[in-house]
Order: sequence, then C-alpha cells, then structure tokens
Amino acid sequence: MRNRVLIEHIQPQLDGGRYFIKRTVGEPVNVSADIFGDGHDHIRAALLYKPESKKRWNEVVMEAQGNDRWTATFVPEEQGFYEYKIEGWVDHLLNWYEGFKKKHDAGQHLGVELLIGAELLKKTAAQYPKSRNAQLLKLAKLLEDEKGYQEAVATIMGSDFAALVDEFPLKQFISTSDQVLRLRVGDRKEVFSTWYELFPRSTSEQPGKHGTFKDVERLLPRVAEMGFDVLYLPPIHPIGEVNRKGKNNAVTAGADEPGSPWAIGNKEGGHMAIHSELGTIDDYVALIKKAKEFDIDIALDLAFQCAPDHPYIKEHPEWFAWRPDGTIAYAENPPKKYQDIVPLNFETDDWKNLWEELKNVVLFWVKKGVRIFRVDNPHTKPFAFWEWCIQEVQKEAPQTIFLSEAFTRPHVMAALGKAGFTQGYTYFVWRNNKQEMEEYLTELTQTEWREFFRPNFWPNTPDILPYELMGAGANAFVLRVLMAATLSSNYGIYGPAFEFMENQGNNNGKEEYLNSEKYEIRHYNWDHRNRLTDAITRINRIRQEHPALQNTYNIHFTRTDNDQLMSYVKVNPDGSDAIWCIINWDTMHTQSGFVEVPKELLGITSGRRVNLKVEDMLTNEIYHWFNDWNYVELNPEKWPIHIFRVALL
Amino acid sequence: MRNRVLIEHIQPQLDGGRYFIKRTVGEPVNVSADIFGDGHDHIRAALLYKPESKKRWNEVVMEAQGNDRWTATFVPEEQGFYEYKIEGWVDHLLNWYEGFKKKHDAGQHLGVELLIGAELLKKTAAQYPKSRNAQLLKLAKLLEDEKGYQEAVATIMGSDFAALVDEFPLKQFISTSDQVLRLRVGDRKEVFSTWYELFPRSTSEQPGKHGTFKDVERLLPRVAEMGFDVLYLPPIHPIGEVNRKGKNNAVTAGADEPGSPWAIGNKEGGHMAIHSELGTIDDYVALIKKAKEFDIDIALDLAFQCAPDHPYIKEHPEWFAWRPDGTIAYAENPPKKYQDIVPLNFETDDWKNLWEELKNVVLFWVKKGVRIFRVDNPHTKPFAFWEWCIQEVQKEAPQTIFLSEAFTRPHVMAALGKAGFTQGYTYFVWRNNKQEMEEYLTELTQTEWREFFRPNFWPNTPDILPYELMGAGANAFVLRVLMAATLSSNYGIYGPAFEFMENQGNNNGKEEYLNSEKYEIRHYNWDHRNRLTDAITRINRIRQEHPALQNTYNIHFTRTDNDQLMSYVKVNPDGSDAIWCIINWDTMHTQSGFVEVPKELLGITSGRRVNLKVEDMLTNEIYHWFNDWNYVELNPEKWPIHIFRVALL
Repeated sequence: MRNRVLIEHIQPQLDGGRYFIKRTVGEPVNVSADIFGDGHDHIRAALLYKPESKKRWNEVVMEAQGNDRWTATFVPEEQGFYEYKIEGWVDHLLNWYEGFKKKHDAGQHLGVELLIGAELLKKTAAQYPKSRNAQLLKLAKLLEDEKGYQEAVATIMGSDFAALVDEFPLKQFISTSDQVLRLRVGDRKEVFSTWYELFPRSTSEQPGKHGTFKDVERLLPRVAEMGFDVLYLPPIHPIGEVNRKGKNNAVTAGADEPGSPWAIGNKEGGHMAIHSELGTIDDYVALIKKAKEFDIDIALDLAFQCAPDHPYIKEHPEWFAWRPDGTIAYAENPPKKYQDIVPLNFETDDWKNLWEELKNVVLFWVKKGVRIFRVDNPHTKPFAFWEWCIQEVQKEAPQTIFLSEAFTRPHVMAALGKAGFTQGYTYFVWRNNKQEMEEYLTELTQTEWREFFRPNFWPNTPDILPYELMGAGANAFVLRVLMAATLSSNYGIYGPAFEFMENQGNNNGKEEYLNSEKYEIRHYNWDHRNRLTDAITRINRIRQEHPALQNTYNIHFTRTDNDQLMSYVKVNPDGSDAIWCIINWDTMHTQSGFVEVPKELLGITSGRRVNLKVEDMLTNEIYHWFNDWNYVELNPEKWPIHIFRVALL
Repeated sequence: MRNRVLIEHIQPQLDGGRYFIKRTVGEPVNVSADIFGDGHDHIRAALLYKPESKKRWNEVVMEAQGNDRWTATFVPEEQGFYEYKIEGWVDHLLNWYEGFKKKHDAGQHLGVELLIGAELLKKTAAQYPKSRNAQLLKLAKLLEDEKGYQEAVATIMGSDFAALVDEFPLKQFISTSDQVLRLRVGDRKEVFSTWYELFPRSTSEQPGKHGTFKDVERLLPRVAEMGFDVLYLPPIHPIGEVNRKGKNNAVTAGADEPGSPWAIGNKEGGHMAIHSELGTIDDYVALIKKAKEFDIDIALDLAFQCAPDHPYIKEHPEWFAWRPDGTIAYAENPPKKYQDIVPLNFETDDWKNLWEELKNVVLFWVKKGVRIFRVDNPHTKPFAFWEWCIQEVQKEAPQTIFLSEAFTRPHVMAALGKAGFTQGYTYFVWRNNKQEMEEYLTELTQTEWREFFRPNFWPNTPDILPYELMGAGANAFVLRVLMAATLSSNYGIYGPAFEFMENQGNNNGKEEYLNSEKYEIRHYNWDHRNRLTDAITRINRIRQEHPALQNTYNIHFTRTDNDQLMSYVKVNPDGSDAIWCIINWDTMHTQSGFVEVPKELLGITSGRRVNLKVEDMLTNEIYHWFNDWNYVELNPEKWPIHIFRVALL
C-alpha cells in the first residue's frame, strides 16, 4: 500500500470494463485518464496494451495534458481481442531532476543533491537490462566523484540528461488501473460496408417462377456494378407448411403460396438446410464463391425461431414452451398470436444444449463460407446468449460480422451492441428533419455509443416502407439513399423495392408494403435502369474513392441559415480527404441559403482567410469560396445534395 | 445463465462502486437504474438495502419511469455503512396477468389461460411462507376448476387480483446488479455545522501573556452567543524549538517567539502531548466537557508532520527520509526549503507501523472526547492511508468527522472526499463574481460531487487573507460571511481576524496576513461587538431556525436582470421551509433590478398567478409579490443581502 498514484475515469471504457470497445486494424485507440498523486512529487504514467493471446505488454509513455488528465495512443495491428490498462507512479529520478534544475538556477550548492542523484541512477539502472544500463551507472559514478562537481552539474544541466530521464522511468510502488479493459479489433468491412437485400425467390427471369441461387449468380454483375459489397438474402431454409401465412400476411395460405421465409423449418429440415426450390447447399457455396469474385459477401439471415413443423419441435420438445393442454406456445403479443412462428424457450432447463446447437448453426454456415450474418430480432433472445455466442464464433472465425436487426428501445439496442453485435440497424428511417437527424447522429457518434455501436443506415427494409416514401416520387428516394450513404459508412437498401421506387403502403396504418415480398414471389425487370440506380451507382463509387466517407464517427455538422439545408463535413483521420455534404430536405422545392465554413476542422488557422475550392462530385461543378459563409442552392429535381470534395488553396 | 434482465447505470454510485456515497440519518437515498429484458415480457425489479453489519436485506419495489429507467427510495435509519443492490427478473405471473386481461378484452376463450395461471400461482406460492400463501393456493384451485370458469375469469379481472400480483412477485432467474454498492450514513452535524477558529494562545485577558485552555473556556459563552457549534483550535501540541520560525515567517525566531503551532513536537512530546503553556491534557478534557454544555464541539487539528525535534525522529528514524550526508530531508518545494518541518515518509518499509501509529494518534484524542478533526494538508499524504485510517476510526467511533484542509487541484480534492473525508475546504474564497460562484455551486451540488463532497465555506483562514478583503471595509466582510452562511450549510471563519476585520496583507504578493497569528501571540478585546459580530449572530440564528439553510444541495439559482445581483432559493426536502437569498455583489454601490420567481420550485402550478409574501429576516421588511419578476434594491452600507422567508398566499 505504498503506491501513491490514483488512476481514474479511464476513457474509453464501457460500464467499468464490463464490455469491450470496438476498433478496426490500424485505427488508433486514444486513451485518457485522470492520474495524480498526493503532494507535489512528479509522477509518470504508461499505457500498457497487448493482444489478449500474448503475454508481453507493450508500453506507451503517457503525456500530461493539464488538470491531471493524461493521454496516450496505441494502434492495434491485428484482428481479435486486445487488453489495455494504465500504470502510474511517483518517479523519484524525474522528481529529483526537476528539483535539481530549480536549485541550480537558485544558485544553491548541490553536493548532497549529486549524491542523491547517484543513488537514484543506480536504483534506476537496476530496473533495466545490462545491455541498456551502462550509461546510467557511468553517470552515477560521475555524480559520486567529489572532484567531478563542475562536470557532474554541467552534465545534469545538459540536454542529453533530460532525454535520459525521459528514457528511463524509475518505477516504484506502481499503481495499476482497477480493471484490465478489453478491445475487439475487426477489419475494415465492420465499419465500411454497402448492403443490397433481395429475395432470391424473386430473381427468376420468368414471371411466376421460383428464383434460385443460380439466378442470384446471374445478378451479381448488376449488384457489383451498382457498388454493393454485401448481398443479403432473407432466410434460405425450408419454409414451414403448418399455419403458413398467405399473401399480405393472410392467416391461411393458398396451396401454391410460398409463405414467409422467416417461418423456418419443415419436414425437409431446419436452420442447417436449404429451401429446395432455391437449390442445394452446393449451389449456395457456389454462389458464395462466385460472389467473392465480385468482392461481394453473401450475408445469411439468422432467425432463431421455428415454424410449427420445424424438426426441433419433435427432436427437442424441451426447447419449447408447452401449454397445460399439450399445445405448443406460439409467438404472441397479446391479444395477437403469430401461429406460423414458435419461439425457442431460452428459460428451458436444457439451455446449455440449446445454446450449443444455435452456436453450431452459425459455425455450420461459417464453414460453408459465410462471414456476415444479419440477425433477425436479436432483442427477443437473451443478451447473455448473444454475448457468449458471438464471442465463441469470433474465437474460431474472427472475421465474422453480425448485424443486429433490432428496431426497439434505445437501451436494448445499446445492450446488443455491447453484447458484441458488430453492426446494428438504427432509427435512421424515422429521422425526418434536420434537427432530428443531427441529434441522432450526434448521439451515435459523439457519445459513449461510438465505442460499441456501428450504425447501419437503411432507408427501407421488407418490413418498413416509411411514411416518408409512401406515395413519394423519385426525389424522396434519391434524397434518402444519398443521405444514408453519406451519413453512415455502413448502409444498405432492400434493393428492388427501393430502386424501382415501390411506394404503395398496405393501407393498414402501418409502414408496411402492399403485396409484400415477404409473402409472395415477385418478378422484376432486373435490366431496368433509372434515376435511382444512377444515383446509387454514383454514390457508391464516391464512397469507394473517399476515405472520409468510410467512417461514421468523423461527422461534423456545420451551420446554415436555412432549416431545410443540412450541412456536414467529414475529414478522414489523417486529414488527406475532406468531404462536405449539403442536403436539401425539401423534396418539392429548390432551397437556397448560406453555409458556414468549419475553419478549424479544415485546418484554416485563425486569422487566415478562407480560400477553398469545392467540387461537387455528382455534377462536377466547381466553386471557389473566399468567405466564412457561402451561398448554395439545391434543386431536388436535379440533385438534393452537394457532395463536395474540398481542397484548401 | 437463464436470467434475461440487464441492470445498468445505477445512480448514485461512484466509480463503479469503488467508493461509497454519503448521506445522513433520515435522508432519503433515491436509487435509479436502467433495467430491461429481452423481448416483450413484463419485468419487475427491487432495490435491496441493509446496514453492512446485518444479514437480512430490506426490499423496496422499484417503479418504471419510462425509457427503461426504474427508481426506488430508501431511508437509512442508523449511522454507519449500508449496502444496496438491485435485482430484476421476468415476472411470469405478472406477464401472464397482463396478457390475460388483453385476451379477455379481445373476447378470446380463456380455458387454457386459466390452467396456465393456476400453475403460475402455485409456483408463486412456493416462494412464500405458509402464513402468506394460502390465498394463492386457493386461487390456483379455483382457476383449475373447469366448472368455475365464469367465477375464475371474474376474479382475475377484479381489482383484488391486481393487488395480489403486485404483492407477490414471482422471482425466477434473478439478475443482480454487478456491484454491491456502499453508503456511509452520518449524523446531521456532518452537513450542518458552524465553525469558529481561534488560536488559544491569543485568548489571555492580559496583553503579551500566553493564553490557556482556561482562557478558551472563558470565551465559550461568546462563541455560543454568536451561534457557532464547532470551535476549532490550531495544533495544541508542543511546538518545535529547532529551526523555529519567527514573526512574519522569519527564518529564525527570537528567544521568546512562540513559533508556528503546525511545527509539531519537541522534547516535551509530539502528537499525543499538549503544549505546556496551554495547560494539561486534563485541562483540554475539561474544555471539551465545558464546551459540550454550550453544544459546541472542540475540533482538533491533525497535522501529520514533525518539527526537527519531534520525538519520532529519534524513536522512529525509519519513518523519515535521510540524505546521503546523514541529514534529514526537510519539507521542500524546490528551490524552497521549510526547515521547521520534516515530512513523514509514507514510502518507508515500515509503513504498516507508521499507519498504525497515526491511527492511534486519532484514537487517542477520540478517547479524550474529540469527535471533530480538521486535517492539515491531507493531500500531502497518500489517499490509501486516509481511506484506511478514516474507516478504521469510524468503525470504533462512527460519529467522528474529518474536515479536509486541501486547497489544491480539483481531482485531488475529489479523491480526498471519496477516500472518506466528511467535509472539505473549498474554492469559495476565490470565487469573486456571480458567474464564478453560480458555476462553482452548480458543480458542487448538481454533479457527482454531491455524493462524496460536503463543502465547508470559509471566507478566511490563518493562511488566506483573500485579495477581496485586503484593505476592505465592513461591507465586504459582511457580504462574504453572509454569502458563506447561506450558500453552504457548513461554514466557518477564522474568527478574531474576521470579525475585527483585519485587512492588512503581508505585502509579498500573496494572500497572507501581516503579522500572522501563526507566528506570534495576538491580543484581542474579546468584549468588543461591531457590525460584523451582529451580522454573524443574526445569520447563525436564522440558520438554526430554518431547515432550508441546513442543506447545501437544495440550492437553486434564479434569474435576475442585473449581473451584480445573485439570487438563489433553497427549499427543504419536505417543502415546509423556503428561503430566498438575493445578494448585491457590489460592496460600494446600491444595486437594484428584477428577480424572477422560481414558480415550479415554489409549487406555483402553471397557470396560477404569483402571490407571495416574502419577509426579510435581517430587516423584518415584508413585501407582497404578485408578478413573475419583482423589484429589489440592496444598499451595501445597510445589508448586502435579502434573506427572505417565503410564504405562498
């Protein structure tokens, strides 16, 4: 208990180290803490970090930033889990050295000080290997030699000595931060991905015919041409026949209706089987391989729930809840019942085997080549299960990505992020004006959320045709997709419905599609191109070319004098790329106004005049801006957004 | 791992439970947390608390406040340490009941639901003693009886059943908060105390003569009459003779100079001895007893440092730092040396015995009747030592109060509060305008600081004659003491210098008194009364009579239209007392302006008109206010402050 330094309020950390934070390879981890000792002695501190699997800690000297706040940075260089912690101590060599200089400047005799210094140098030398400590011992000798007084004093007052004290911390009575904190390091795709969702059953060239994985292969060039790098297919497993839903969510299905692919399992198999009309497992593996040629990952839908005829129900009745009359408990939200779905009962006595089985489902598909899972309704399964399952999978396959499809309350969405989900769906679809959107992005990127939640912005999904797009024209679709693609580095669209601008709601007061593809096979003219496909193709190319758009947390909103105009600047961490987006929220009218130059962010030091060249990458128009506020005008019939590449002249 | 509820962000707590929070007996502890489960099942939560020494937990049902935030309150009823934690669980009885009601309202047949309910009632009954569960079992029987369908449904839909579900939580798969949190409960004096400091050596009736404890006894009626309940004496131990400081901090003292009482120890003894010119230990004990008759505590100064002739230096040379030339290391702040003071070396190998000895010093005086210690420069001793020492002492004597005399950096002051100091000196003396003062009070009372830091406001100390009071007249003195006494429920003055308005600085650029009493004996005419003693006597009586002023954390600043006017309202927790202070910061001129009525705080519901009677307790003037903003005018020559008692008409 002779340690005298306190280490408090370490950032980043989540709930006192209960959860890990997230970064990608090569992304700096900026660590800070309040570090201080009693009294006036000089202290030092070090940030220690290592991959969890290794024994040796790497050490970075921390720098004092004033008001007892200290900082240091490390850059993780490999995928997987890292650990980090902080050490602090009173450094008596440094303390003596600082005192020595002051006493020297005050003209005091320093004889005893030299002897103290010699002792401290020897103590320091003992902490370092012989290969490094010779210099320290030689200096100690000089300081001890009464005849060398002048030389010793001159040596200490020389600049080499300062470097020496800096290089050789004297660690005694070390305080270590209370927790060893954890960090998960993933690859670029975790923070920069562009998703396209389609129902494979709707990919046949022949109207009315059930599409196959082969048909999907045929569409890969199109998906790649538009710039997507994840192709997400809703569940591909056998679809339950018992209580199957019909068109538009009808309670009973006609004989030839395909049902919802989220009602998984029938006599043909369950979560490890393939719906036979799509093809075979081999066809699926072939699709994955083919997609890789286009740099596209095929994402699998993980929906841990069962149709009433799923094999589990007979094989593992103990995994389900049964009612006193011997019937099975369907999913329900009283008074509603969802009779085509049976939830797994995670409170079962046999929970360990249930967890194992579900993990094995994931690993089964990982072994087939799947690296990305879109997880259906994860918030209806226990947080503890996900925390365990995701870590177990990532131990075997660190590159695996899990996207959480949780459209629910904020704390639950946060908890899933902390439990380990790599990405999460968001409220983007329900943020419909400038103030709402700026507040939401600020919460996601400037608060604790940035440590654990990677947003993935979707302007639509098969479950959500937002009111904003119901009956809307192309302007609104263009606006929403360009906004998603520039606000968030991860974004996606439920493709055909979006690019072909389906805008008919189900007339039930909900944000649902009429004739939803969830319950029927659709037919599309996949050769069709329009204003939407053009906008999507362009924005995805711009995202590829501009690192500033490959990050979500670097967003900086700037002022405008018009509430319909929203302005944000993104600069990539090394400053080599700056993108400035200005959006017109009004899809009906041209809006104009002035936007403020974020001078500090763009490195325009105070006093210097603005001198910018901004080039709109959609229109190739170039403007030169010399003022703090500059005029813009956006016509939604042309482009509802400026995406400027910014150059400082 | 079948538990499905998460409990996060519990408030109050400090550094994830690393430190305890502070309350007083009878003061409510409002606990809140984010609590939520997966899915849509209904959850419940309970706050559990108990005195640390007891085994049985008390339980309070928590209430959902929206957005997954839950709250509950408990009131500690005895001094000492308490523990508290939170439990949460999916309550299947409640969940079934809520579903049942919806299904009933939807007109569904409820036969199977009744059987499920019967099972849940039996499961619930098994969790409660036979003395309580008969009703549950009887109901289960009714629900199981096919013939009783109508009666069973009616019973469940009746209001008694709701109360039953409320009364009998069905706890399964309980989640418990990660930490058991700690709370220290003290008595009223910890948060409401009024301090007077004097040097006992300056209390003789004869000029030049050394005062004694008997002389101090003579002054007790005067101290009590002015309304103080703590009388704090600087160190009363033998004063070092080696390197003794002279008048005005001179490096050498004349033969008859008394030295600084903070240079403790000489051949007569150390920290457990009494400076013989003051009297004996028996005299000191007699003073403590006599003071108790006036409801005054005598506070002892705990200055853990030694004069060069302190007995410890010979008896325990291992507790000090020695230099290579065989001399002892004096206190220093290079290039300055303080040769009358030798610091204890807390890094000594013999630290355990050193800690024990220092604790024994405290307990020695506790046994003599001391319950309040003012601790000198605690920030120059390790935090870990204080954390241990204060808890050890309070285990034996829970009523012991420690005031930290740390005028240092914010993090260090906070760390001492968290380590266990009951009260702390503050930056009050350096907050010299409205904005500074409001910001400071907001930090102390509206942030985490409120959980661990009890401010004690001093307008002066023997070490600090603030620039504001140098050369100042009575107006400034009256202002500063009335501000201290109304802003903070703990406050004190270094008495004679303050009430006799000593305002001469030492002309060294520092905030030091000329002819400081630290280095010489002063003589005062203790019978003298003036504008200051009158103001002090009045304000202390008002503090006694008004619970709203006996709390620091209930302050609420309100708007004025004049930056020289600062306005704050304090309402005591049960709403029975409301005090409104308005201060004129300008000590030279009358200032006037309008102040806003804090309607919500005073319980004036929206829409209702203001109708207040405010009575100034210094002048007995009464005003009736009917508007949201009201006119005030303060002449510093009369009173620089309104202290209104507020009555709602």
